Amino acid sequence: MNARRPRVVIVGAGFAGLACARALRRVPVDVTLVERTNYHLFQPLLYQVASGLLDPSQIAAPVRSVLRRTHNCDVLMAEVTSVDLQERRVHTAARDLDYDFLVVAAGSATDYFGDASLRARAIGLKDLDDALALRSRLLRNFERAAVCTDAAQRKRLLTFVVVGGGPTGVEFAGAVAELINHVLPKDYREVDFAEVRVMLCEAGDRLLPTFAPRLSRSAQRNLERKKVDVRLGTALREVTTDGVVMPDGESVPADMVVWTAGVRAVPLLGEGAPQVRHGRVEVTPSLHLASHPEVFVLGDMAALDVEGQPLPMLAPVAIQGGEHTARVIAARLRGREDAPFRYRDKGTMATVGRGAAVAQIGPLHINGLIGWLIWLFIHLLYLVGFRSRLIALWTWGWNYFFYDRPVRLITLPPPGG
Amino acid sequence: MNARRPRVVIVGAGFAGLACARALRRVPVDVTLVERTNYHLFQPLLYQVASGLLDPSQIAAPVRSVLRRTHNCDVLMAEVTSVDLQERRVHTAARDLDYDFLVVAAGSATDYFGDASLRARAIGLKDLDDALALRSRLLRNFERAAVCTDAAQRKRLLTFVVVGGGPTGVEFAGAVAELINHVLPKDYREVDFAEVRVMLCEAGDRLLPTFAPRLSRSAQRNLERKKVDVRLGTALREVTTDGVVMPDGESVPADMVVWTAGVRAVPLLGEGAPQVRHGRVEVTPSLHLASHPEVFVLGDMAALDVEGQPLPMLAPVAIQGGEHTARVIAARLRGREDAPFRYRDKGTMATVGRGAAVAQIGPLHINGLIGWLIWLFIHLLYLVGFRSRLIALWTWGWNYFFYDRPVRLITLPPPGG
Repeated sequence: MNARRPRVVIVGAGFAGLACARALRRVPVDVTLVERTNYHLFQPLLYQVASGLLDPSQIAAPVRSVLRRTHNCDVLMAEVTSVDLQERRVHTAARDLDYDFLVVAAGSATDYFGDASLRARAIGLKDLDDALALRSRLLRNFERAAVCTDAAQRKRLLTFVVVGGGPTGVEFAGAVAELINHVLPKDYREVDFAEVRVMLCEAGDRLLPTFAPRLSRSAQRNLERKKVDVRLGTALREVTTDGVVMPDGESVPADMVVWTAGVRAVPLLGEGAPQVRHGRVEVTPSLHLASHPEVFVLGDMAALDVEGQPLPMLAPVAIQGGEHTARVIAARLRGREDAPFRYRDKGTMATVGRGAAVAQIGPLHINGLIGWLIWLFIHLLYLVGFRSRLIALWTWGWNYFFYDRPVRLITLPPPGG
Repeated sequence: MNARRPRVVIVGAGFAGLACARALRRVPVDVTLVERTNYHLFQPLLYQVASGLLDPSQIAAPVRSVLRRTHNCDVLMAEVTSVDLQERRVHTAARDLDYDFLVVAAGSATDYFGDASLRARAIGLKDLDDALALRSRLLRNFERAAVCTDAAQRKRLLTFVVVGGGPTGVEFAGAVAELINHVLPKDYREVDFAEVRVMLCEAGDRLLPTFAPRLSRSAQRNLERKKVDVRLGTALREVTTDGVVMPDGESVPADMVVWTAGVRAVPLLGEGAPQVRHGRVEVTPSLHLASHPEVFVLGDMAALDVEGQPLPMLAPVAIQGGEHTARVIAARLRGREDAPFRYRDKGTMATVGRGAAVAQIGPLHINGLIGWLIWLFIHLLYLVGFRSRLIALWTWGWNYFFYDRPVRLITLPPPGG
């Protein structure tokens, strides 16, 4: 290894960080990728872990093995504590890293809008811990309901409130409804499933607001056929220890409240970088800080308007941003100008359960089974690692034919003990 | 359901409890099975979760789905707090259960011999939490060693001590050695693998003391070929915060200490039942308490000498005991005498890694690849559920050909934080 090679530090092993590290493989730089966990998480399928379809290892791959053949990239598992933009140094809990180029791609976290009681009460759906906590809570509530003789308490245990009608909320509500409609009745003969209720609350006037209105309606119809109680125009007044309070003051007792109503960029750069909506950091059209051209900000953390629209928080944006940044770094090493980032919209999609999804690919608006098959194909393509893809396909096939969600394990202690 | 039918309460969904519940399927009784988790755990493969080969869901199946077709059996997920033998009532955290017949099969737990510091310091290998904790600790130590500049501290992080040369210790040491020899060097290029050490300490004069001496030697040779440092006649003087103290006073610094040197029956029946070795409860040849013929004690919890030998703590003993008890209950309902339990020894086996196991089936003593193939076949036969078997076979096949241990995920917070 040549000590004179420029040092690139990448923070985050999400879609953006991994794509950048891989694309830098043949560029004459030494790369260190810092990630606080030891795995890359395929976040779009997190809700399938939370609803008992997939095992964690099917959507999480060790970062080191993903980058095994990227020989100019070292991996450091550590939490970044701060970034010194002047000294060009990243401070981590393990050791400090000097850089010539910094790529910040730490993603976003659930936004509880600074409400400590909401944070303590609701469960997000952004990382593996969240997903495992949701799976355990959901199943534990059925166990508790099975022996609960107090009707009011039983109803509270069996009311599941999902807040937020974006893709995460819609996908999770659909998966939970399928688990409840098709799998759990065979397990919990003691439970009267007429008492079970899945409620999806969205503040706006339709689900999936970034999709075409026709697809929003299709998703809603599909969820309602699955007996999900969809409430539009419903900005909850409060989330309490007991449950949720509706805009009209009605109190709905619910033990499990899932919060997917907001995400916020991880505040890694602190005061040194201009923050706009959702804590995202303002970047130039080449995805770097205006004040520090050697610092790139990617994926969910980056705020950039393209054709008057802010870049969405989606995997394709992150992946393309990572690849773009590698190209810009390579170009600078050859003394060339930065090219602007051009986002190629590959479309967006959301699944609402077994055999039904909505997809929007340019002018094409697709729903139903065709949408779902496209969704399945695309997700399998993006899943990191051949083994994961095969197992996931196999598991999905199994589930598709037998309506099963095999990973019904309660592996976390109950809340508060 | 007829209210006059005798009520059977089974405590524990291990091999004994499940076998009993299933065998009672056509007996005119109402069964309630109480288990503190919501899953049946295939304990013989727990070390494969701890060493990153298998996912939890591949060795754990929800009790309710296992017993879905056993229509006269209800499942209650609850911790048993006490048993009132006089009132014939089981107290649980959820609700109380009256019984006409009680089947106690709560198994065994790691025995730390009342040593609180040992319990705090060492990790057992008896349940899913243990296995996940070991997996995370092992991988986290490699992550920490990769950035550790203090040679002594690095050596301590990379020294893995397994205490106990029984099947659990031997199998885990073999699996860890394979992970270290074949998988991790590709992930941790920063680590000098000459510094890594797996030590297996056994107090007796040979490994696997219940096997024939020839097989003990074969297992030892196999482990030593995998570079496991096997120490016989080594009853550790102490396990300290720093590491372990050998019988001669030598201190071996080691961050991860795995304790498989003792198990003890779960003390469920309290003072009411006569306890002998390892807290096991003395039973009659028909497996019930002498003082309470309606209370059966099975599996690891039962102490019974058959032909001068105590029944071993093995899955076949538990399964046959469960089936026997169901037959005794059925016979009593027809006014017949109890038959004595007859243990049919199906042999014992232990695997020492990829393609090598020792098996002892009556007069047959087998080692090497043939032993391993028999081991594989038998374990797959016993694995609960068709799906688990297929996935496990597939995973093992994959691992066999590619030397991979894919589930290398650190999913637990570091100790003390």
